[in-house]
Amino acid sequence: MTLAARLVDIHSHVYLPRYAALLRARTTVPRILTSSRDGKPDDRLLILDRDTGRPVGPQYWDRDEKIKFMDRHGIDLTVVSSANPWLDFLPASEAQTLASQLNEDLEQYCADSPSLSPSLKRIYGFGMLPLVPEISIAALLEAIDQISKLSYLKGIIMGTRGIGKGLDDEALDPVWAALEKTGLVVFLHPHYGVNSEEWGEKNNGHVLPLALGFPFETTIATTRLILAGVFDRFPSLRLLLAHSGGALPQLSSRLASCIDHDPVVASRLEHDARWYLGKLYYDAIAYGPEELGFVSDVIARSQRYEPGSSIPTNAPVDRALGSKRMLFGTDHPFFPPLQSTEKWQSVVDNLQAIDAVSGWGQAEKDNVHGGNALSLFNLIQL
Amino acid sequence: MTLAARLVDIHSHVYLPRYAALLRARTTVPRILTSSRDGKPDDRLLILDRDTGRPVGPQYWDRDEKIKFMDRHGIDLTVVSSANPWLDFLPASEAQTLASQLNEDLEQYCADSPSLSPSLKRIYGFGMLPLVPEISIAALLEAIDQISKLSYLKGIIMGTRGIGKGLDDEALDPVWAALEKTGLVVFLHPHYGVNSEEWGEKNNGHVLPLALGFPFETTIATTRLILAGVFDRFPSLRLLLAHSGGALPQLSSRLASCIDHDPVVASRLEHDARWYLGKLYYDAIAYGPEELGFVSDVIARSQRYEPGSSIPTNAPVDRALGSKRMLFGTDHPFFPPLQSTEKWQSVVDNLQAIDAVSGWGQAEKDNVHGGNALSLFNLIQL
Repeated sequence: MTLAARLVDIHSHVYLPRYAALLRARTTVPRILTSSRDGKPDDRLLILDRDTGRPVGPQYWDRDEKIKFMDRHGIDLTVVSSANPWLDFLPASEAQTLASQLNEDLEQYCADSPSLSPSLKRIYGFGMLPLVPEISIAALLEAIDQISKLSYLKGIIMGTRGIGKGLDDEALDPVWAALEKTGLVVFLHPHYGVNSEEWGEKNNGHVLPLALGFPFETTIATTRLILAGVFDRFPSLRLLLAHSGGALPQLSSRLASCIDHDPVVASRLEHDARWYLGKLYYDAIAYGPEELGFVSDVIARSQRYEPGSSIPTNAPVDRALGSKRMLFGTDHPFFPPLQSTEKWQSVVDNLQAIDAVSGWGQAEKDNVHGGNALSLFNLIQL
Repeated sequence: MTLAARLVDIHSHVYLPRYAALLRARTTVPRILTSSRDGKPDDRLLILDRDTGRPVGPQYWDRDEKIKFMDRHGIDLTVVSSANPWLDFLPASEAQTLASQLNEDLEQYCADSPSLSPSLKRIYGFGMLPLVPEISIAALLEAIDQISKLSYLKGIIMGTRGIGKGLDDEALDPVWAALEKTGLVVFLHPHYGVNSEEWGEKNNGHVLPLALGFPFETTIATTRLILAGVFDRFPSLRLLLAHSGGALPQLSSRLASCIDHDPVVASRLEHDARWYLGKLYYDAIAYGPEELGFVSDVIARSQRYEPGSSIPTNAPVDRALGSKRMLFGTDHPFFPPLQSTEKWQSVVDNLQAIDAVSGWGQAEKDNVHGGNALSLFNLIQL
């Protein structure tokens, strides 16, 4: 098996034991509510507003369970990240201390994982910054410095609130500068969705906040980054979007049109909105081949909007090109199967979706499976 | 020119003179703020939260201006609709009276429009129901009856709040039943977006609420209709989605997966979520060929989810099929050009997008231009 044919999961979460213990000790959301049923632990995780909770167990914190899941699905290598809500609910000083401890914990979690080859571990990680209100920028830069020195941490995961005002807050510019300089991949992941009043009064379980709220949040945050000129000021920033960029690809031409009709916004951006979408990375967690193919088209068409491009806007795009910025992921341990089955349907669906994208050949599929991830995280030369 | 090659605009708004007068008389949003600059009227329309307003003039109420716009862009026939916020801000009794008057006004507006052929007018309309809190269902049914008897009104436009609890409110079942029975097309159009706090503190003009908020609102409303089983109970309801369905197509496989993981929701629906998307109609206002092509794919793939279908989920879709439920629109008089130009860029962009969809031949493009609309609104046999 060549490196390019590896299966690499770049969207896989963990609540490290230290973090799970903190959630267990809490009496308000977010929390792990511990109880037992028939003498067995029956813990539930409550993270969202109006949350009825979901069962939580060793798959959330035990590395052996992660490896078992990987083995069951043929996943060679995983880049794990802490799951939301990260440190959002903590005061600044506590968040700062805990971020540092959890980054060290995660380094150890990776270091103790099995080897894939003489030079590769099976698990790498995204670290965490103490992105909470009232944190100092110096503390954030210190955390970036810490993570960049830890061998197995290859990026950071972050939510969308920044230090309280969102990611388009200019106070974060030194953070983007440091992230750009270190080359750490920034994994942008939702947590809050949108105002839960939008979901109405009917009981639809978690469907609306998960299916719509999460992708909307990612879409809003990324759009605000574009509008704030963050990608103009930090063109080498490597941003990876959860859930295939949410709704951003489908709304991107509308976004470009709305910007064109708003001279104040248009005048401060260097590029058409669609250009920026070709500079981002997207996980391949969209559950359908048409969605993945479309995201690939949207990435590929970015070339039309390159300064000086002579590609007409009605030229067909080369879908294969876009695949280079798309990366397989599972969202483990979320979306577990309802019954005990050999494989998780959510994983099977995403693998089948990649396999069925029309216009992608085997090379593109191999790259989405793992080659792109090994390259993005600089794991190929190891 | 055959009927199929007509250009028909199904998304075009009007503030009828009676309605504009009402907005002018108001002192709180929504309102038209009248003033003058250099002796000329300089009216501004304020409809959204935190709205700085936009210039408003005869293009919003004068039928001659509508016809001029149509002539300038080669539009043969337009199905006009009142623009948001419709009657949402009025008490029930006032909304009921005004809906009835505005439906009669709109009938007259169409009746007095020029003829396209011996049997066709150039303008048809979507009527309005008094969908406000505390209205009686009887009043809504009466309005549907009124509209169905007016020769030039071919559907109704509605927002997403229903009678206060959203469109998944079971109290609306008799309304859906009556709309299904009359065959009136229901044009679902956003107004509220999502909570404006999501847009942050930076001044991005109208970009975020228009580019993201509007499509999110449509997406949420349609998803809630699906989850409430409205399309299971009223399978012949003809629902036309503004702005190409917003983000619903891109999130539809994720929606299907989230439903699968929520047995309570899954058990009450008759079909996979993606099936319902093939039963809806979509305007072709997405500003880009990749977006339109993708929506077409999503409509076409609905066949895979037909009961008893033997189409494998990895079979490539026939994009041409999906085009049958997509209809050209302009969103006039919104998104006017910044400078006085021969044609409106927003219209040119959408026409070019239709022209550049790969996988659509001339027949599909003709249908999206007008053939589908003539068929949907039963204007072909006239």
